[in-house]
Amino acid sequence: MLVSHLEMGMLSEGLTQVLIPVAALVGIVFALLQWYVVSKVKVSGDSSSGLSDKLIEDEEDGVDNREASIKCAEIQNAISIGNLSLSLSLSLSENALICLLWPDHWLFNGATSFLFTQYKYLSVFMCVFAAIIFLFLGSVKGFSTKSEACTYNKGSLCKPALANAAFSTIAFLLGALTSVLSGFLGMKIATYANARTTLEARKGVGKAFVTAFRSGAVMGFLLAANGLLVLYISILLFKLYYGDDWEGLYESITGYGLGGSSMALFGRVGGGIYTKAADVGADLVGKVELNIPEDDPRNPAVIADNVGDNVGDIAGMGSDLFGSYAESSCAALFVASISSFGISHDYTAMSFPLIISSVGIVVCLITTLFATDLLKIKDVSEIEPSLKRQLVVSTILMTVGIAMVSFFALPSEFTIFNFGTEKVVKNWHLFFCVAIGLWAGLVIGYTTEYYTSNAYSPVQDVADSCRTGAATNVIFGLALGYKSVIIPIFSIAVAIFVSFSLAAMYGIAVAALGMLSTIATGLAIDAYGPISDNAGGIAEMAGMSHKIRERTDALDAAGNTTAAIGKGFAIGSAALVSLALFGAFVSRAGINTVDVLTPKVFIGLIVGAMLPYWFSAMTMKSVGSAALKMVEEVRRQFKTIPGLMEGRAKPDYANCVKISTDASLREMIPPGALVMLTPLITGTLFGVETLAGVLAGSLVSGVQVAISASNTGGAWDNAKKYIEAGVSEHAKSLGPKGSDPHKAAVIGDTIGDPLKDTSGPSLNILIKLMAVESLVFAPFFAAHGGLLFKYL
Amino acid sequence: MLVSHLEMGMLSEGLTQVLIPVAALVGIVFALLQWYVVSKVKVSGDSSSGLSDKLIEDEEDGVDNREASIKCAEIQNAISIGNLSLSLSLSLSENALICLLWPDHWLFNGATSFLFTQYKYLSVFMCVFAAIIFLFLGSVKGFSTKSEACTYNKGSLCKPALANAAFSTIAFLLGALTSVLSGFLGMKIATYANARTTLEARKGVGKAFVTAFRSGAVMGFLLAANGLLVLYISILLFKLYYGDDWEGLYESITGYGLGGSSMALFGRVGGGIYTKAADVGADLVGKVELNIPEDDPRNPAVIADNVGDNVGDIAGMGSDLFGSYAESSCAALFVASISSFGISHDYTAMSFPLIISSVGIVVCLITTLFATDLLKIKDVSEIEPSLKRQLVVSTILMTVGIAMVSFFALPSEFTIFNFGTEKVVKNWHLFFCVAIGLWAGLVIGYTTEYYTSNAYSPVQDVADSCRTGAATNVIFGLALGYKSVIIPIFSIAVAIFVSFSLAAMYGIAVAALGMLSTIATGLAIDAYGPISDNAGGIAEMAGMSHKIRERTDALDAAGNTTAAIGKGFAIGSAALVSLALFGAFVSRAGINTVDVLTPKVFIGLIVGAMLPYWFSAMTMKSVGSAALKMVEEVRRQFKTIPGLMEGRAKPDYANCVKISTDASLREMIPPGALVMLTPLITGTLFGVETLAGVLAGSLVSGVQVAISASNTGGAWDNAKKYIEAGVSEHAKSLGPKGSDPHKAAVIGDTIGDPLKDTSGPSLNILIKLMAVESLVFAPFFAAHGGLLFKYL
Repeated sequence: MLVSHLEMGMLSEGLTQVLIPVAALVGIVFALLQWYVVSKVKVSGDSSSGLSDKLIEDEEDGVDNREASIKCAEIQNAISIGNLSLSLSLSLSENALICLLWPDHWLFNGATSFLFTQYKYLSVFMCVFAAIIFLFLGSVKGFSTKSEACTYNKGSLCKPALANAAFSTIAFLLGALTSVLSGFLGMKIATYANARTTLEARKGVGKAFVTAFRSGAVMGFLLAANGLLVLYISILLFKLYYGDDWEGLYESITGYGLGGSSMALFGRVGGGIYTKAADVGADLVGKVELNIPEDDPRNPAVIADNVGDNVGDIAGMGSDLFGSYAESSCAALFVASISSFGISHDYTAMSFPLIISSVGIVVCLITTLFATDLLKIKDVSEIEPSLKRQLVVSTILMTVGIAMVSFFALPSEFTIFNFGTEKVVKNWHLFFCVAIGLWAGLVIGYTTEYYTSNAYSPVQDVADSCRTGAATNVIFGLALGYKSVIIPIFSIAVAIFVSFSLAAMYGIAVAALGMLSTIATGLAIDAYGPISDNAGGIAEMAGMSHKIRERTDALDAAGNTTAAIGKGFAIGSAALVSLALFGAFVSRAGINTVDVLTPKVFIGLIVGAMLPYWFSAMTMKSVGSAALKMVEEVRRQFKTIPGLMEGRAKPDYANCVKISTDASLREMIPPGALVMLTPLITGTLFGVETLAGVLAGSLVSGVQVAISASNTGGAWDNAKKYIEAGVSEHAKSLGPKGSDPHKAAVIGDTIGDPLKDTSGPSLNILIKLMAVESLVFAPFFAAHGGLLFKYL
Repeated sequence: MLVSHLEMGMLSEGLTQVLIPVAALVGIVFALLQWYVVSKVKVSGDSSSGLSDKLIEDEEDGVDNREASIKCAEIQNAISIGNLSLSLSLSLSENALICLLWPDHWLFNGATSFLFTQYKYLSVFMCVFAAIIFLFLGSVKGFSTKSEACTYNKGSLCKPALANAAFSTIAFLLGALTSVLSGFLGMKIATYANARTTLEARKGVGKAFVTAFRSGAVMGFLLAANGLLVLYISILLFKLYYGDDWEGLYESITGYGLGGSSMALFGRVGGGIYTKAADVGADLVGKVELNIPEDDPRNPAVIADNVGDNVGDIAGMGSDLFGSYAESSCAALFVASISSFGISHDYTAMSFPLIISSVGIVVCLITTLFATDLLKIKDVSEIEPSLKRQLVVSTILMTVGIAMVSFFALPSEFTIFNFGTEKVVKNWHLFFCVAIGLWAGLVIGYTTEYYTSNAYSPVQDVADSCRTGAATNVIFGLALGYKSVIIPIFSIAVAIFVSFSLAAMYGIAVAALGMLSTIATGLAIDAYGPISDNAGGIAEMAGMSHKIRERTDALDAAGNTTAAIGKGFAIGSAALVSLALFGAFVSRAGINTVDVLTPKVFIGLIVGAMLPYWFSAMTMKSVGSAALKMVEEVRRQFKTIPGLMEGRAKPDYANCVKISTDASLREMIPPGALVMLTPLITGTLFGVETLAGVLAGSLVSGVQVAISASNTGGAWDNAKKYIEAGVSEHAKSLGPKGSDPHKAAVIGDTIGDPLKDTSGPSLNILIKLMAVESLVFAPFFAAHGGLLFKYL
């Protein structure tokens, strides 16, 4: 049944052309507005800005300004050791503030210096990989500059393969740059917000919460809006050359996804190794050997640890989700371009993925107001419900938004490319596809929360098992992680089944987009976590009162749960995204079936399922080795620097930062190479069928490893916090800090660190990046791949 | 290209009819002979049997007969508590021997009582499941008793579906009984051999080694020969009814595999929970809290622990490998029956799988002589090489055997059923299929050894990481386990690719048979491990001298490595077997493609990949909970029984045995139900395509989890032993026993216990049992399955 090529949705092309950039700009303006509000919290020493009032307002108990200022001076010295010569002439009374400012600056500088070192490597990588893309794709038709007959839009003439190679390369670079920019901005905002949150904590938990949350929102909105805007403008510009050749246009645009995702490799893997080398190293000596508290300024690795939070959790998570967003958009656009939307040149329907994201920005904007203005929190107990409410509100509002977009932007009936055949789809089918992705995300988020929050029995059981020591804690924690995959996998399976059945691979791609449509809110509550964590760190380092620390701890505890939710969300969307990319790859490579009952596919499947283990082995070992180096350095400093333990001498923070930086950049190479080379080698030597098997295998296996690793780690972390907080009778019976069960819990927490922040989340990158790389190189593999089988 | 139906191999049908049963009988006689030799080591108190000579020969240093006899009396009392009233009137000088005898008897009785309790549950399960098989398969054609046209052998008449249902049920019961018998015999032999090995250790390490090895061989040969003989006789008897309907005959025979494998579920999972609940419980209180050595008779859980070794490692491993053997034979026979062998009624070629097993028995017999007679060991350092030599010798000899069988038993060219089409195969193709399976097994064995033996750097690195505590030990151990999957998966992939390409699913089935063709040797060196382990335990319990304990420890250390090799081997063969069963299922269900690009298959794939996690979560949690109960009981006894710690009072061993027995039987139900119900529910509700996806997903994911879990656990165990033995300078720097690194290593060892002995090996059962169950029920699912999709 052929659908008329003239039937279009109600939304005109002109309106679409306006709607998308306006939504993106609204997002950016909203982000800047939030930034402005946060920046009104002054941390400079200028007394005219009303800061002295705030100090007077503050009802700190037990604050010793003299002592705090001595600490402060030490941290300040640490910065000058770090080659930041800043001359300071401030009165003693202002020192308490300055000391908040300096660790903040130090964090910012530590984080930025890491990013800049990373960018040096990145630029080399980008140039090399851009050259590879150009050469591989250019060679498909022997670098011919002649136009070719189109593959899907029969009878039309398409641009030469060489042009696709060039534009794919450009799109790759654009995606990479947008990702880098997003990561950089995220870090800048987060480090900017750390000390401001600490300061606001003096005024009450509500104020501090809003500051941390607003800062997270800046990052969320900037990232979502930037991603959309750059993609929109790129399509517009590419169109100037491509004209009516939408096949070539959207094929080249897939490079954007590859660019975004390959930067995420550096952010997630490099950042993950950085943060956990520092964290594990700091904990092993500090908490376990010397019994000094977390974030104690005497610990030489403390700055590296706090820098790591920004590098790994903010920049890493941001680039990961940006990659997912860019990839799912590209996968949807590519499939649409070879379906009736593309063939009949229906611009509005073609832009359906972008319109969904545009509406998502508006929905998240409204949702954010609930947290920052409409329903302000007053008590510690309201923090977590408020953050969770964000998820529910955005999901409900977005469901309405999706319904509207599906109704107005799409023709009532159209056809979607389905591995060689065409599938007739109705507009309300697509509504279900997007909506089920969105709601599956919510289910995954809530399940993750159930398994990682210490308000529920799973984590409490793990905490209870600490009674018999670290071994039972680890056994129960691993079992919890394994168990926690069940519901997420069933929700992903349902989402896949519904969207796949209704609209083939296009359905999967828009389901992924649905899950990511509320990315601005998701990122806001996710970035909120490390911001609060570091706010607590700064309070500790600056020697602020117990009350302040309690408030930041409460913010942080809620942040731990939302961080776990964010990770669940990132993994869930990564699964859908890679399946969509997998479908797009298969379509582009011209395969109509991926039959498990052929040896080529099956060996791909089993080897693909092995890759997450290989990859995790590398990242876990990397964290372990780097942490051991950090331990040696910290021990060395405590041994060789007299008076360090007593707080009379200052540690050499810079050396620890250097160890983390060097380790992360060096150790990132083997796992990075595994991810980047596997598709190239498999495709070239074994061909597209085996590569399809590898992608399917690594997807279905990787998602399990990733979820279980993240949740196991999260559960151990919160089991430890549960014992430390000692809120219930049960918790008290396990504590206090320093008791045997608590020691066992600390061991679990340390083991969980690399699982939940390095190897687990890095697997998202593995499964997505291999898929998008295969998609970009598909024409080359289809033309020249499978050398081994050709010659055997 | 059609192959003439008359071309046959050189081996005549008559000769085949003789060769198979003769080989099986030779195996049984050889096993009995070994048993006879072992039984010549007398442990009775009868001084006329030359035992007093042996006591005189013995050059024990520091043996205190009086003290040993007191200990002995205690153990003896323990037995009477266990309701074994035995009146003893022996002279004091004989007590040293008696005390060897009693724990032995106690072990035997503990193990047997566990088995008999298990058998009660088993018989209920078998009856219920037999009824299900009969009803489901009978309903395929509505319980019609009319003969039907054959499916593959066009034009012929086949027996009614009801007959197939009845004979499948009989085959199921036969398989189950053979498995139970094998497990029981294995246990009987192992417990029989324990004390004899300890006794022989007094005469030197060489004698003890041969005793332990011979005992292992008894089990290996009995199991291999029994399995072959029962299968051979069943086919012979079934033929009386089926006549020329080979399709129906070999379809019914698949029930034998299902029977064997479902008993393995009880053996592996139940046994695994039993042994580790006892082991972890004993260690947590004994080694960690009270600092008393392993196998100390004061520990109330020590008997349960030693019983567990027999229950889990001997009976569990035996039933697992027997299941693999039965399943791969059935899968190969089934595929052959619908290929040219079956259609042209070439009996010898049809019996190719059985002839391979027959030759395997002969090859293993020769191989065994190398260890027991030709190359006797004289020194501790020769133990491990001698065991490893067994693997190499059997593999080389078997390669020759396979070549001969392929040349003589097969026609030079024939066709194999290949998912709807026929594939032309030459006899030397099958040689390569079987041989590559065999050699892949060797590679997997050696890789496992590399990653789990403390002679190599991986385990030494893990031991080294204990310097910084338990957390880094766990991180490095997990990373090691993940890394250790790489080579096994590549070898499995190569084996699959070669055999799949050469002879489709028949190739896979015979590759699995190839890997299992040396099962007698494999089981011999595998059973050797727990026998030596328990010999050490008995020496400790009986308070024998340090020198004896050192000798049994050396035997045990080598046994740990071979146990790991055995596990690697079991997992590798399980992977091939389940793929073969998967292929047979797909063929029988009439599916020609399993296309990942359909939603039905893909959701099966991702949910299937999740099942190993769900299953592991259950088994790990079971061990954890049962161990906690054991800990409470042990603590209670130390608290309430005065003088227990000082060795003046006797612990209540029976209560601990009861806890382990109850826990294992109760906790086995949920994972057992998951395995048994998943194929039934998926097939009935979602149909054969989704079920195919589930099988493929659980296979490719489960094999990774299983290998990594087993090797991680093995590595932790040997890292601990490495520190304890303190052989090298490096090892000494980490020790001695009780040092902080050693404590960290003990925590790792305890965590590894459930991983390596419960959840890891149990996954073999998960992937095999689901596949063979699907195969048996395939006609039902094909006829009535997929209800959900039919009504949606």
